[in-house]
Amino acid sequence: MKRAVLMVIDGAADRALRTLGGRTPLEVAHKPNIDRLAAEGVTGIMDPVAPGVSVGSDTAHLALLGYDPYETYTGRGAFEALGAGLDLEPGDVAFRCNFATVDDKMVILDRRAGRYIEGADELEEAVNSIELREHPDVEVIFKHTVEHRGVLVLRGEGLSRHVSDTDPHRVGERVLECRPLEDTPEARKTAEAVNEFVRLAHEVLRDHPVNRERREEGLPPANIILLRGAGSLPRIQSLSERYGIRSACIAGIALIKGVARAVGMDVIDVPGATGGLNTDVMAKAKYAIKALEEYDLVFVHIKGTDAASHDGNVWAKVRMIERVDSAVGYIVERVDQENTYVAITADHATLTEGTRDHSGDFVPVLVWGADVIPDDVACFCERACMRGGLGRIRGLDLMSILMNYLDRVEKFGE
Amino acid sequence: MKRAVLMVIDGAADRALRTLGGRTPLEVAHKPNIDRLAAEGVTGIMDPVAPGVSVGSDTAHLALLGYDPYETYTGRGAFEALGAGLDLEPGDVAFRCNFATVDDKMVILDRRAGRYIEGADELEEAVNSIELREHPDVEVIFKHTVEHRGVLVLRGEGLSRHVSDTDPHRVGERVLECRPLEDTPEARKTAEAVNEFVRLAHEVLRDHPVNRERREEGLPPANIILLRGAGSLPRIQSLSERYGIRSACIAGIALIKGVARAVGMDVIDVPGATGGLNTDVMAKAKYAIKALEEYDLVFVHIKGTDAASHDGNVWAKVRMIERVDSAVGYIVERVDQENTYVAITADHATLTEGTRDHSGDFVPVLVWGADVIPDDVACFCERACMRGGLGRIRGLDLMSILMNYLDRVEKFGE
Repeated sequence: MKRAVLMVIDGAADRALRTLGGRTPLEVAHKPNIDRLAAEGVTGIMDPVAPGVSVGSDTAHLALLGYDPYETYTGRGAFEALGAGLDLEPGDVAFRCNFATVDDKMVILDRRAGRYIEGADELEEAVNSIELREHPDVEVIFKHTVEHRGVLVLRGEGLSRHVSDTDPHRVGERVLECRPLEDTPEARKTAEAVNEFVRLAHEVLRDHPVNRERREEGLPPANIILLRGAGSLPRIQSLSERYGIRSACIAGIALIKGVARAVGMDVIDVPGATGGLNTDVMAKAKYAIKALEEYDLVFVHIKGTDAASHDGNVWAKVRMIERVDSAVGYIVERVDQENTYVAITADHATLTEGTRDHSGDFVPVLVWGADVIPDDVACFCERACMRGGLGRIRGLDLMSILMNYLDRVEKFGE
Repeated sequence: MKRAVLMVIDGAADRALRTLGGRTPLEVAHKPNIDRLAAEGVTGIMDPVAPGVSVGSDTAHLALLGYDPYETYTGRGAFEALGAGLDLEPGDVAFRCNFATVDDKMVILDRRAGRYIEGADELEEAVNSIELREHPDVEVIFKHTVEHRGVLVLRGEGLSRHVSDTDPHRVGERVLECRPLEDTPEARKTAEAVNEFVRLAHEVLRDHPVNRERREEGLPPANIILLRGAGSLPRIQSLSERYGIRSACIAGIALIKGVARAVGMDVIDVPGATGGLNTDVMAKAKYAIKALEEYDLVFVHIKGTDAASHDGNVWAKVRMIERVDSAVGYIVERVDQENTYVAITADHATLTEGTRDHSGDFVPVLVWGADVIPDDVACFCERACMRGGLGRIRGLDLMSILMNYLDRVEKFGE
């Protein structure tokens, strides 16, 4: 049976960097395994969504997994909630949350309440005891994830994701009222429920023992929950419905796990997969090899490269790419090379110099497999892949191309 | 006056084949004439519909002739009927048919009634005498084509192509009831008419002298007609309306002739054009040269390559490409080279190893003509054309590109 590994090196693409004498991290990194796949396979460049369009990791991954983000992106909150392991139902509205610190006038003193919150699970429990009075039919489900972060799900009839954030994204400003973003009863009801939740959560948190202790220790109390990115479950056909495949995701961060769950992938948790520069890339490779026994498509996501770019750390990005290369070598040595395809790409470029943020640049892409017709490119990097045989494709094309190699596409016509 | 020849080598594209040491049939075939056109012209790769999307010959040809198959593909039956020479009217519903053999319980014993049916024309006559009683306003038009095959057209007010097949596609199963595939009076009426037709055809065929004779000779009687692929005429602007050109099709098989007729091409019948590996390619070339006296666009279709791939016969595919090359040489020597453009491509890849079926791989394409700007590619094959000057285009682009060379495109804006 034919199988495929799709490896996405988050934000790996970049520009001609001054620090590297006009080269990119992918050009400078020593990566013999990935470059061997480039030499034996076909390469190209890819616009995650369209030329010049800058994307988030969520929208980019939707595209790479074959889902048009303009049709299926329904707010980040839903993907975060799925990634945090909450089971969303159709109609639920989910938010990304921060524990934060406010003063008596609801002015924000610390958007992260000090970032590290011992006892956050107790706070979670307290928040989950909240019962809305104005909208008693709306259920509150809150989950703390890591550090100051969490997700909130509102469950009930007639809710809408079209409501504004309560997070002003700035210290020194007051917590915002949630407003309906469309003139519908659903949006109004959701905004009311959110505002009541924020008030009640503040009441519950203000004098909670965990926060009394924090104040005594001179730490900022986690006395408010800021909400942003309202989202609901996209209505999409799963990868298994679409292609008849079993697929699994190996990723360190909740957002990517959430996107994977939204398209019907199983999520495999890997000990040591942190989503940071300290992630255990080799552990991911080992789990990928194991997953190939059971799954037709194994999607491996590596975040560290993007994190290095956001930090403006060129050499950390280079080193991360080199660590990924070892993992690729481990995988390729162990797969059934006659029947396994490997695709490697990035979900977007992240500019390590300049904005230190995602950009709308293209990314390189390679596809390797026994019957793939190779081109003349022998380096997986932006410059060489411009001459690649795939030409310039879009993120949305990638899954079709892979599924075609796996003989999983249905013929249109006869 | 500028003219063009569009030659489609059906299923000619392929993958890196083990039998050929990782090369493709187009790479291995000795084809000096086609490669000369590649060297002198411009090449590229083309997705018949979109990257990774696997297409039938019908949908692919609609795209190559400039019609978006997602908008214009209205079921294979209509194209088969047109290809069989029936004149379809808007509202007609057409089916592909097989003569088959059933027992008393309508269980299928032979889906092809032995394949060779002497006296099929008499059976055709008998079937055409059928008058539906439940829907007397629906006219029955049946035509036998080749071997066990035929087409059925139902003509009348308020019919729909959204009905299911009666052909279970498997021996040992009962003939299926035709069901409406949408909840409309039209679909219900059509399904009823189909089911009555199948019953009456069985009655007419069961004791027909041709079948009595077949039974005496120990041959399976052609006592049922299996229907599939309900289709109706797409509502499209003809090539002549669109571009003001006269166009003709030279093809061996009914389906391609049908697509050509649907877009308004004249169909030129060529003696010896069988659609198989034994087709007289050179006869097609001769008719193409003659047709260029009268037509602005001559579309030549060659099926043998696809047939070789479906048979898994790598070398038959290579040889067929070499025979096509001779025909191309014949054509190019005889055209007015100052004023004639030649485009050569495939309608899709067919994988000679592996699935032996159409795939979603790209195909190579070349355009040759006196004022075409050449690229550096000198081989018409998948690998070389990846570096082609056309880049990666879509099937839908090809006709525009050709009509542009023929000065037939209207300016959009001023």
